[in-house]
Amino acid sequence: MENKEELDQLRVEKKRLESLLDFGHKVSSRILNLDELLKMIMGETREILDAERCTVFLRDFDSDTLYSKIADGMGSREIRIPLDKGIAGAVARSGEVINIKDAYADERFDTGTDSKTGYVTKTILTCPMKDKMGESIGVFQVLNKRSGVFDTEDERILLLLARQAADAVENAFLYDEQRKMFESFIDTLSDTLDKRDYITAGHSRRVTFFAIKTGEAMKLMKHDIELLKYSSWMHDMGKVGVREHILSKAGKLTDEEFEQIKSHTVFTREILGKIYFKREFRQIPDIAASHHENIDGSGYPRGLKGMAIPFFARIIAVCDVFDALTSKRHYRNPMPILGVLNILKNDVGVKFDPVCVEAFFKINLLDIVRGINLEKVENFVIVSDDEAILQKYILEDFYRVLSSSEFTPAQSMVVESFARYYGK
Amino acid sequence: MENKEELDQLRVEKKRLESLLDFGHKVSSRILNLDELLKMIMGETREILDAERCTVFLRDFDSDTLYSKIADGMGSREIRIPLDKGIAGAVARSGEVINIKDAYADERFDTGTDSKTGYVTKTILTCPMKDKMGESIGVFQVLNKRSGVFDTEDERILLLLARQAADAVENAFLYDEQRKMFESFIDTLSDTLDKRDYITAGHSRRVTFFAIKTGEAMKLMKHDIELLKYSSWMHDMGKVGVREHILSKAGKLTDEEFEQIKSHTVFTREILGKIYFKREFRQIPDIAASHHENIDGSGYPRGLKGMAIPFFARIIAVCDVFDALTSKRHYRNPMPILGVLNILKNDVGVKFDPVCVEAFFKINLLDIVRGINLEKVENFVIVSDDEAILQKYILEDFYRVLSSSEFTPAQSMVVESFARYYGK
Repeated sequence: MENKEELDQLRVEKKRLESLLDFGHKVSSRILNLDELLKMIMGETREILDAERCTVFLRDFDSDTLYSKIADGMGSREIRIPLDKGIAGAVARSGEVINIKDAYADERFDTGTDSKTGYVTKTILTCPMKDKMGESIGVFQVLNKRSGVFDTEDERILLLLARQAADAVENAFLYDEQRKMFESFIDTLSDTLDKRDYITAGHSRRVTFFAIKTGEAMKLMKHDIELLKYSSWMHDMGKVGVREHILSKAGKLTDEEFEQIKSHTVFTREILGKIYFKREFRQIPDIAASHHENIDGSGYPRGLKGMAIPFFARIIAVCDVFDALTSKRHYRNPMPILGVLNILKNDVGVKFDPVCVEAFFKINLLDIVRGINLEKVENFVIVSDDEAILQKYILEDFYRVLSSSEFTPAQSMVVESFARYYGK
Repeated sequence: MENKEELDQLRVEKKRLESLLDFGHKVSSRILNLDELLKMIMGETREILDAERCTVFLRDFDSDTLYSKIADGMGSREIRIPLDKGIAGAVARSGEVINIKDAYADERFDTGTDSKTGYVTKTILTCPMKDKMGESIGVFQVLNKRSGVFDTEDERILLLLARQAADAVENAFLYDEQRKMFESFIDTLSDTLDKRDYITAGHSRRVTFFAIKTGEAMKLMKHDIELLKYSSWMHDMGKVGVREHILSKAGKLTDEEFEQIKSHTVFTREILGKIYFKREFRQIPDIAASHHENIDGSGYPRGLKGMAIPFFARIIAVCDVFDALTSKRHYRNPMPILGVLNILKNDVGVKFDPVCVEAFFKINLLDIVRGINLEKVENFVIVSDDEAILQKYILEDFYRVLSSSEFTPAQSMVVESFARYYGK
């Protein structure tokens, strides 16, 4: 008989341990989107603890609040609680578990949410979620155990779950921070360039915009678009190594000055070569430094030919020339758009890879207009009528229209719409 | 009787599940030093699987090898195996478990290590360690189960352990990558500055060196030294926003030009304000932008006074002036060292915080010499006799020596030693 009891007990414990292990596996093997991760964590926790509801609050260290984006029964509204208020706040501050057997009899319980949602909270179990330093990075809360009140075993399990969840959340944050840091640094590098080379300010961002659109027209995968994006964003970085008076010289450059300009591609490789890129981004310096190589071997700095030029550099080359010719310089206006497109077409197989030019001409005309005006944030609006007209064309169609000797009324309209946003 | 058997079985299983959960907790709650983490993982795994030895191989994606720094019985020698060789390589490539009951009867087994170390391998269990994308990032290997051969249950457990370890290792890598990326970006930013402002190239790194030494003299904690380090490294970043001809002007600046120079502190705040720093480093822009504030309120850009100036900015201020005066400019030689030190002392309470100057004068003279010559990598050597003499003095003592009217022979020696590395 005693055996029977111990057996039952052991079976229950074994099952519980297995769900805990399983939980650990599930939260850790997820690709890390924080919202999805939290949703899954909450569902599993509800199940394991036989509770009606579960909420995971994360701590916002900047504003010292706890917030939850996805709470059971709250739709997608964000809940935000100051750290010095309520049960969750108390748990985050003290790092201790709070187990309430009768919510309405407890003065710490705030009935506000219940009266708003119509839910009746009976029992509450709340525990902290601690990071590796032992600091509370959030709070785990379950409500209304279906089979009675939460006991000390439930407390132990919730703590275990919270610990595993904390790991996964920390990891997701880490990925997120890495991405934010990475992008902000690139942005800062390109800003330092703009600060100095004010004539071409915004060039890197516009080229990046066009490169992404070209990549999308080629149906590149998300990861490749990222690599392309960062490479274009930094392609002119080496210009910080070229003397200011040469960069901003309006007239014809001497041979020696032109050699100095050319050296920016070498500097780009040198500077970017010092950055620690994670594996997926190791090619960035090579791509970025090859955007002046021509497909026929007449480019610089290495005179690479054809397939020897990194593919993404060949995309950037097209976007780079397009932006240079369509942008205003202090000594000249943007070239008429037909002239620009003719140059791109004429240089296919000479400077440019046919595949890249073809993809570039597949970009939607509305995106072209957006790209050209990317940095004009103030007072720049594309009116919706023009938007509707522009998005009917890809660049190739628009090019055919411009090249024809006469316009139909519909063609005139797109030419006029485009003109309203070009060369201003 | 049946009950008895099931009971025993359940007890064993429960114990095993608990050790697995415990393992998960241990590997995930460690502060992340990869070497320590791996050591702990190997010890626990050996224990849980009752094996004589355990090795964790990590995959080096650059060279396509597996390596292990800490392997049982190998001392601290690194083992490196090409991915296309041996049992570990096969496991990493195929992602499948290999369980060998008799090593010497298996042709895949390489007896080389055994014959080198004298160890006799009998049984081998090897499984892959996969990341969240399902890619093998390493290999887990246990040797010689004490109680016989490894069975399928052992395989299952090793896979579970490997999965938990993979999480922890990935996390450690992530931290490591974040740090590397961060430092390389800062280095790149400061390099872009050096490329343009070649007259003061190396200034940021030298100031950083002196700031760290000052911080150490103050016995600051490791984390604070880091904050100080990154802030000094970037203190002059805003100079990218100042026109080149003003930065490099040799003669006296006009008022307007000086105003432009001053604006570099504003630009520093602006540029660094755009970088996403993690919480511990949020103060960097504020510290970096305040290094020209004077303690008496006569500094710029904000004319902050005393304690209103961030403490670390007050440290940087001292190091900044010290480096400016001890460095060669194209229009002047370094100022004689006594003159430099007199200026620092005279400006205590005017420009400088007394606490910071006092700490600066506690820097060891050998470190001062090293800092001054930090960027002279080629052909720069401090001979060991001088080293021995210099390190007997802190800067304060050296200052007293220099200020005295007559030198003892020992004092003459340090003055001469110092002179050999100053102003070259």
